[in-house]
Amino acid sequence: MAVDHAAAEVDHLAAERAAARFDVEAMKIAWAGSRHAVDVADRMARLVASDPVFRKDNRTMLSRKDLFKDTLRKAAHAWKRIVELRLTEEEASLLRQYVDQPGYVDLHWGMFVPAIKGQGTEEQQKKWLPLAYKFQIIGCYAQTELGHGSNVQGLETTATFDPMTDEFVIHSPTLTSSKWWPGGLGKASTHAVVYARLITEGKDYGIHGFIVQLRSLEDHSPLPGVTLGDIGGKFGSGAYNSMDNGVLRFDHVRIPRDQMLMRLSQVTREGKYVQSDVPKQLLYGTMVYVRQSIVADASKALSRAVCIAVRYSAIRKQFGSQDGGPETQVLNYRTQQSRLFPLLASAYAFRFVGDWLNWLYTDVTQKLEVKDYSTLQEAHACTAGLKAVTTSATADAIEECRKLCGGHGYLNSSGLPELFAVYVPACTYEGDNVVLLLQVARILMKTVSQLTSGKQPVGTMAYMGKVQHLMQSKCAVKTAEDWLNPAFIQEAFEARALRMAVNCAQNIGQASNQEEGFYERSPDLLEAAVAHIQLIIVTKFIEKVHQDIPGHGVKEQLQNLCNVYALYTLHKHLGDFLATGSLTPKQGALANEQLGKLYAQVRPNAVALVDAFNYTDHYLGSVLGRYDGNVYPALYEEAWKDPLNETVVPEGYHEYLRPLLKQQLKLSRL
Amino acid sequence: MAVDHAAAEVDHLAAERAAARFDVEAMKIAWAGSRHAVDVADRMARLVASDPVFRKDNRTMLSRKDLFKDTLRKAAHAWKRIVELRLTEEEASLLRQYVDQPGYVDLHWGMFVPAIKGQGTEEQQKKWLPLAYKFQIIGCYAQTELGHGSNVQGLETTATFDPMTDEFVIHSPTLTSSKWWPGGLGKASTHAVVYARLITEGKDYGIHGFIVQLRSLEDHSPLPGVTLGDIGGKFGSGAYNSMDNGVLRFDHVRIPRDQMLMRLSQVTREGKYVQSDVPKQLLYGTMVYVRQSIVADASKALSRAVCIAVRYSAIRKQFGSQDGGPETQVLNYRTQQSRLFPLLASAYAFRFVGDWLNWLYTDVTQKLEVKDYSTLQEAHACTAGLKAVTTSATADAIEECRKLCGGHGYLNSSGLPELFAVYVPACTYEGDNVVLLLQVARILMKTVSQLTSGKQPVGTMAYMGKVQHLMQSKCAVKTAEDWLNPAFIQEAFEARALRMAVNCAQNIGQASNQEEGFYERSPDLLEAAVAHIQLIIVTKFIEKVHQDIPGHGVKEQLQNLCNVYALYTLHKHLGDFLATGSLTPKQGALANEQLGKLYAQVRPNAVALVDAFNYTDHYLGSVLGRYDGNVYPALYEEAWKDPLNETVVPEGYHEYLRPLLKQQLKLSRL
Repeated sequence: MAVDHAAAEVDHLAAERAAARFDVEAMKIAWAGSRHAVDVADRMARLVASDPVFRKDNRTMLSRKDLFKDTLRKAAHAWKRIVELRLTEEEASLLRQYVDQPGYVDLHWGMFVPAIKGQGTEEQQKKWLPLAYKFQIIGCYAQTELGHGSNVQGLETTATFDPMTDEFVIHSPTLTSSKWWPGGLGKASTHAVVYARLITEGKDYGIHGFIVQLRSLEDHSPLPGVTLGDIGGKFGSGAYNSMDNGVLRFDHVRIPRDQMLMRLSQVTREGKYVQSDVPKQLLYGTMVYVRQSIVADASKALSRAVCIAVRYSAIRKQFGSQDGGPETQVLNYRTQQSRLFPLLASAYAFRFVGDWLNWLYTDVTQKLEVKDYSTLQEAHACTAGLKAVTTSATADAIEECRKLCGGHGYLNSSGLPELFAVYVPACTYEGDNVVLLLQVARILMKTVSQLTSGKQPVGTMAYMGKVQHLMQSKCAVKTAEDWLNPAFIQEAFEARALRMAVNCAQNIGQASNQEEGFYERSPDLLEAAVAHIQLIIVTKFIEKVHQDIPGHGVKEQLQNLCNVYALYTLHKHLGDFLATGSLTPKQGALANEQLGKLYAQVRPNAVALVDAFNYTDHYLGSVLGRYDGNVYPALYEEAWKDPLNETVVPEGYHEYLRPLLKQQLKLSRL
Repeated sequence: MAVDHAAAEVDHLAAERAAARFDVEAMKIAWAGSRHAVDVADRMARLVASDPVFRKDNRTMLSRKDLFKDTLRKAAHAWKRIVELRLTEEEASLLRQYVDQPGYVDLHWGMFVPAIKGQGTEEQQKKWLPLAYKFQIIGCYAQTELGHGSNVQGLETTATFDPMTDEFVIHSPTLTSSKWWPGGLGKASTHAVVYARLITEGKDYGIHGFIVQLRSLEDHSPLPGVTLGDIGGKFGSGAYNSMDNGVLRFDHVRIPRDQMLMRLSQVTREGKYVQSDVPKQLLYGTMVYVRQSIVADASKALSRAVCIAVRYSAIRKQFGSQDGGPETQVLNYRTQQSRLFPLLASAYAFRFVGDWLNWLYTDVTQKLEVKDYSTLQEAHACTAGLKAVTTSATADAIEECRKLCGGHGYLNSSGLPELFAVYVPACTYEGDNVVLLLQVARILMKTVSQLTSGKQPVGTMAYMGKVQHLMQSKCAVKTAEDWLNPAFIQEAFEARALRMAVNCAQNIGQASNQEEGFYERSPDLLEAAVAHIQLIIVTKFIEKVHQDIPGHGVKEQLQNLCNVYALYTLHKHLGDFLATGSLTPKQGALANEQLGKLYAQVRPNAVALVDAFNYTDHYLGSVLGRYDGNVYPALYEEAWKDPLNETVVPEGYHEYLRPLLKQQLKLSRL
């Protein structure tokens, strides 16, 4: 087992593990994707867990400065290990994941390098990428501004071409044009890809990217005209405070013309703006890539929270003792199961839809290479929507897992507060979830409007081609067990999604102005977009469990979880299904009944199902989620490490408590 | 206006304020309850805001030790001011509210003193209360243990009577019996009311309260046999980390017999256990009191979050500019309105149901005094349920408000991260919300079972007496405007709640064992309980707007908000209404349509509606929620205060960044 607790003497969860009705090792492979994936993750996880530099159990107690320094130290040490051990790209990326501390490195590899790859000419790539690959420069991605986030076209920073010197002048004309939020910008980066309005020959050509050096490579001081700083503390202790999200202002900073990223458009020596013949659609490929990785991260964050909550729910006992005997494990309560098992199922659902999105990215990339743009819009909609739905659900789920751990989930030592605080920005970055869902809705409306013209929708929208059937189909479920039939589930979700979309389209159609109609109906459109995306998640889970999945009982467990995810989602959004006539109230009640039976089947397998995530205690970072379940002594021990316990009588006693107790303050009339 | 920004030069929200169609000053009175309440709150808020000791804008940057010391300082200073200014109890309590920092004082006044008042004999009260009132002792409430929270009967700490010495021996027999969580216990308290199993003459009489001295009044060191400490860091920075939630172990600590709280039962000199004739029901009165104050706190926390999000949404602009002109205020977007205005309406709804609960407490108390227990069970159910529903909704709403502020809501300077972190424990303490809702459900089931026997339900359950009508009534709504009729809303909510309860009762009735049936159906029972409680909130809001409410336009605004709350709740839980046949899908769609129209009416009044909460900038503690709306310069200024910005080149550069950039690490094969 990939766990750093071989020395544990007693496994308090042994009975739970023995009760599992499937092969956990085989489930690890199903979760990770392959034997190889399990092995390499295992190796990297152990490497990190066994290295004292990567210790993180004291992280929430560090001051901002110490935390940032700790991040610099970990990043340097990780790089040293990557070099020494000659790790592959896959291994290095996993190592960074298990180090589990946001830092400049994430932006350097995740945004700066891809931006140059995607938007730089071959020449530019040849110049800049080797510097970045060897860390001779550290880069970040400076797009958002103090006054401008989602609306990239509203950015105010200017890059004005000066033909006299063959340079661009980068400038922040207003306070709100200050670059604001970019990770790694505040303290670590030497360079940035800066997005600014390109102005040449007196004309504003809109937003373009420029490579700008920010700090001296000799002493790290900001270059003339560059103001740099950190934007201040963020949600939680530990969490994202390890990152130097930054503020940046330019006072007429000059850069050579060839530092404009020129793959898609160029400015000539004379200052002429020229579009290249590289299709703009190529940029979508990068977006699909970034967002599919966010979906993959969602399943990681969610599975960590679920792992903690499931294990602790098997340890924690409350009530149920009539005669002073042992109390009941809280995992046995139906209320606990009905809140927790859908989240366990969601972790698996998001994992598999993430795998599929990864495939989709490859597929889109291959098609782009042969200039086939036919699936691009649909792929864009489905990645945007999946990013929105999985991150929102994950953020809520982490907090729900925290609540499911009762009072102790509120302690930093549970790991859950930090997991929540570090995760929630995923709902906002790389496209605010509401903005993204409206993009999905826009494409849904377009697809609906084209249905009558006979244009066949593709990919995840193909079901909309069955409009005539789905608008009038009746769900045939008659018994609770009928809900175990994936065809019934699939059709119910298809009917709900399509009818909601058509309904929106009809309402918009009645407006005198289509754009105004879209605006007026946007809350409904959000709901229709969510319905469409949930259908995709359900569909991909169903497809997954139709595959051959080796290992005793593994497929059966995944089938259960698939049904839990689908029927839970159905129950939670019952209003949609009933309002669209996709189900009758009776059928909704049968789904709920079946859901209860499914929970009973998940129960004995729950601990083994989270063991299959194969997380080390180091990575989980939770006293409540310990593999061995030895929670209470660990909680007790952890408490004494708080700085407040350095003295029994607290600092401040003599100034602020003793005078009170000793009546050295006048009595009030209270 | 009660704002600490008289010096502000420009009001960036002036246009918003001018657009309001009602008298804000009159709304302040409606919100606060009376002219007097506005005035006294105003005075106390200014007093706190103008005193540098009560500064809290740097709180999230303090180390745990400094934060705790700051709390001791503020508590001592607050007490000094209370004494010097001879404040009334009402004023003192408001002053503590505006200091807005959890600390031992909360438990001293909120739990220790009431426990002695409620459970101590007259003699005990005479001895201990004056000491507490003058702060000659500091007390807390030590109930929960490391292994035991919700289930008080499972506590393990023992209090064994020793007739030889006329003492109780207080002991922690196991690790899990360690007292764990009590606020004020870790560092500040000198005394505690400790709950322990009373054992006398070899028999265990269950849980009783004992006054136990923990620390020396001379030097604050723990007494012999007492182990004391803080349980460690909690969610967020700042937030609840100002509180010394504590751990406490007893090693055979002896206390005089007369320190058992003996109002309800006594142990005689000989060790006989005697029940007094004081009815146990009196204890419910205290529970109703504590929970009604939690409901009042919910509306405070929620209204603060909403105030920040509404003001900032009126300042923040995104998209909507076609020609480089100004962008659209995000408050104008339907999606923003549909997420934010229901929370604004909820703040008002919770405020008014809280006022009503306060009345209920008085009513119950008066009835108890004349031994009338007829409404006690119903009052208990409705306070428990309202505590659960309002705290869960508020916790979710604060986080939603944070998301509605986009990226900047993630900054500590927005105030929202700390507001969330400090609020969420309300979902767990004083009764975990799920446990409380199951208690409500149990009383609902009991009430349903008695309907046939002709027993008339009382108070908030009286509607269940109309079972014959409500089980078969049909909603008469035909147009969207019909939903403005409170009678239609009321009946729809009554039908939904009653039918869900009856449905549960029928399903439980089919089980061979009623207790098992209750357990199996507990997820459904939670939903039925929520439906019942939401009906109460809607009903009390409707009753409120039926009263005379002075001030131009005030009543109209509250009517709007009442309708928003009701129709939003209806839309969110549409599945319940449709599944129970309380509405048709068409009627559900009409409700949603009307909701959109209501949002348009709220829009011009939104800023004024949050101004009516009358919060100072100090109390709000949010750069985004500033009264004058001058957000961006303030955000920019705030950033530079972060300790990380003390140097431009970060600590750690020479150790961890320079060697990397200078290629003093071997190159990898990446």
